[in-house]
Amino acid sequence: MKKKIEKVAVIGAGSWGTALAMVLADNGHEVRIWGHKEEQITEINTLHTNEKYLPSVPLPHNITGFSSLDEVLSEIETIILAVPTKAIREVLNKIANIRSEPLIIVHVSKGIEPDSLLRISEMIEQEMPADLLKDIVVLSGPSHAEEVSLRHPTTVSVSASNMETAEKVQDMFINQNFRVYTNPDIVGVEIGGALKNIIALAAGISDGLGYGDNAKAALVTRGLAEITRLGVKMGASPLTFSGLAGIGDLIVTCTSKHSRNWRAGNLIGQGHNLDEVLKNMGMVVEGVRTTKAAHQLAVKYDVKMPITSVLYDILFNGVNAKDGVDMLMARSKTNEMEDIANVFDDQNSIVHDKK
Amino acid sequence: MKKKIEKVAVIGAGSWGTALAMVLADNGHEVRIWGHKEEQITEINTLHTNEKYLPSVPLPHNITGFSSLDEVLSEIETIILAVPTKAIREVLNKIANIRSEPLIIVHVSKGIEPDSLLRISEMIEQEMPADLLKDIVVLSGPSHAEEVSLRHPTTVSVSASNMETAEKVQDMFINQNFRVYTNPDIVGVEIGGALKNIIALAAGISDGLGYGDNAKAALVTRGLAEITRLGVKMGASPLTFSGLAGIGDLIVTCTSKHSRNWRAGNLIGQGHNLDEVLKNMGMVVEGVRTTKAAHQLAVKYDVKMPITSVLYDILFNGVNAKDGVDMLMARSKTNEMEDIANVFDDQNSIVHDKK
Repeated sequence: MKKKIEKVAVIGAGSWGTALAMVLADNGHEVRIWGHKEEQITEINTLHTNEKYLPSVPLPHNITGFSSLDEVLSEIETIILAVPTKAIREVLNKIANIRSEPLIIVHVSKGIEPDSLLRISEMIEQEMPADLLKDIVVLSGPSHAEEVSLRHPTTVSVSASNMETAEKVQDMFINQNFRVYTNPDIVGVEIGGALKNIIALAAGISDGLGYGDNAKAALVTRGLAEITRLGVKMGASPLTFSGLAGIGDLIVTCTSKHSRNWRAGNLIGQGHNLDEVLKNMGMVVEGVRTTKAAHQLAVKYDVKMPITSVLYDILFNGVNAKDGVDMLMARSKTNEMEDIANVFDDQNSIVHDKK
Repeated sequence: MKKKIEKVAVIGAGSWGTALAMVLADNGHEVRIWGHKEEQITEINTLHTNEKYLPSVPLPHNITGFSSLDEVLSEIETIILAVPTKAIREVLNKIANIRSEPLIIVHVSKGIEPDSLLRISEMIEQEMPADLLKDIVVLSGPSHAEEVSLRHPTTVSVSASNMETAEKVQDMFINQNFRVYTNPDIVGVEIGGALKNIIALAAGISDGLGYGDNAKAALVTRGLAEITRLGVKMGASPLTFSGLAGIGDLIVTCTSKHSRNWRAGNLIGQGHNLDEVLKNMGMVVEGVRTTKAAHQLAVKYDVKMPITSVLYDILFNGVNAKDGVDMLMARSKTNEMEDIANVFDDQNSIVHDKK
């Protein structure tokens, strides 16, 4: 299959943006990457490395760094939006001021905005005038940037309301090491990616307390059930949570040493407080903001989310980590199917529709 | 809640049998444990340890070891059957010859018998005359013996065709650290426990090849889908695979250093052959036999099980581990929902029934 070679701009030069730029560069595209730190961009253009985010990884020479949004966007139809959720509105606002032609925006961040309770594709729709927006695509799945940059086998899902655009993006990224699958359920793919960070924080806390793999497996199992319950109420297909953007991403985030959210939780489990931990990490821990958002969503949609609720109390209400996790383990319900079956209440019509 | 104190016999003094004996002993029961090695039984009764299987763990003194099946069974109504699947028929046969009163048999092994393709509860039904069998219960879930013996938080499912018996067994085992949930789906609980060992072998191979956490998450995600596809055809509820005996046990087995099946796969991924590995392990690796059985089941029920099929070829047909895993990663399907949605074909009626 001959690939169409394109100019693509990756907005955000953190570890994930850089790793995805590498995949695109491996596929022969002309890749531009934007970051706001002049020094980092110079490093990318002269040394072809991004040491802070991907230590010891040589970058392909067809990746060029830009610190000007104006320049990086010229003659570009597709951008990969790889900035922390907190920065998305500001960056989109700047892009909207610069552009006059419509863009395909592929977002690769994982989060939900507190208070507005919007998914990222909804934030993009709010910030970008309709005439500047060709399509929105989400790319998500079990994919630590470090491993992608080492060209280890990785699978992800892409989703868009327009499946043709999803397939275009699939074609842009897919190669021998980086397998891309389409999924028509954009709501599920976004919710799965965002909410797994909450469970990763909880899993990290359990590990930090020294509770072991049995306890963590219980947390992850119940975590998936509560993510699915919420996602389905928000319009997602329950099947998505059995796929790469659901259980796949959840597993990798809860069990890998690469996961920032797990690491942050682990430090909290060891007795550090949230402020200390966030200062310590030096990178964004999306799960903290997402816990706040999910806690609000659980109230809004009237969904029971015991792990999210306990984590919220640990992070923001001073509840002791051990007391919180012990409470989760000791709850009195004794028939596990009651819990899981709730996911499917009133949802069989959705399952039917997807056939 | 005041517990009813019972005499219970654990048949099998490996790591899992011993750890479960400890849980029962912690709950105040009079626990007997049977093993066929005289020396090991003496160690349990004098030193109160079982060094080979649970190194450095002191056993409660209300566990008594027996090397005579005759003695261990006297005045006993409930046995915990904790022997490797390969030994089950032989042991049951002996028990049937000794007993004249009916027994509740709680089995805690994970496997499917090759050729007969029977689940363990079905093997028990075959071997035990009906008048000696009061009920069969299965106990399964994410529960490494090592962690249970250290009293780390653990959750498991129990299932039986008679829910009253399931609840009796739940009550016998449940305590602060060891949480027991009932699940009415005995087929699903047995299939989930047995088949996760196949995926653990595959995950170990991927890790042994150095493929990383992204690749492993992809394997586990697809592994769950193929286990569910088969299980549902065999009469299980798809919901069980989203619970402790499904995804829970799968996660712990694929990501924990305690898992024998993972360790065996890891050695194969590093280039050792199956015979070498089995000699090396010194303990039973259930997944090897189960791969054979599942491969036969896939044919019998006409279910696509790509991971099982590749693993079968690696273990028994001399296919190179790297070639096998690479083939799995590079398959051409591009819409992940096609794969997952198959699970639910014709199964919505089951989902409905469970409400």
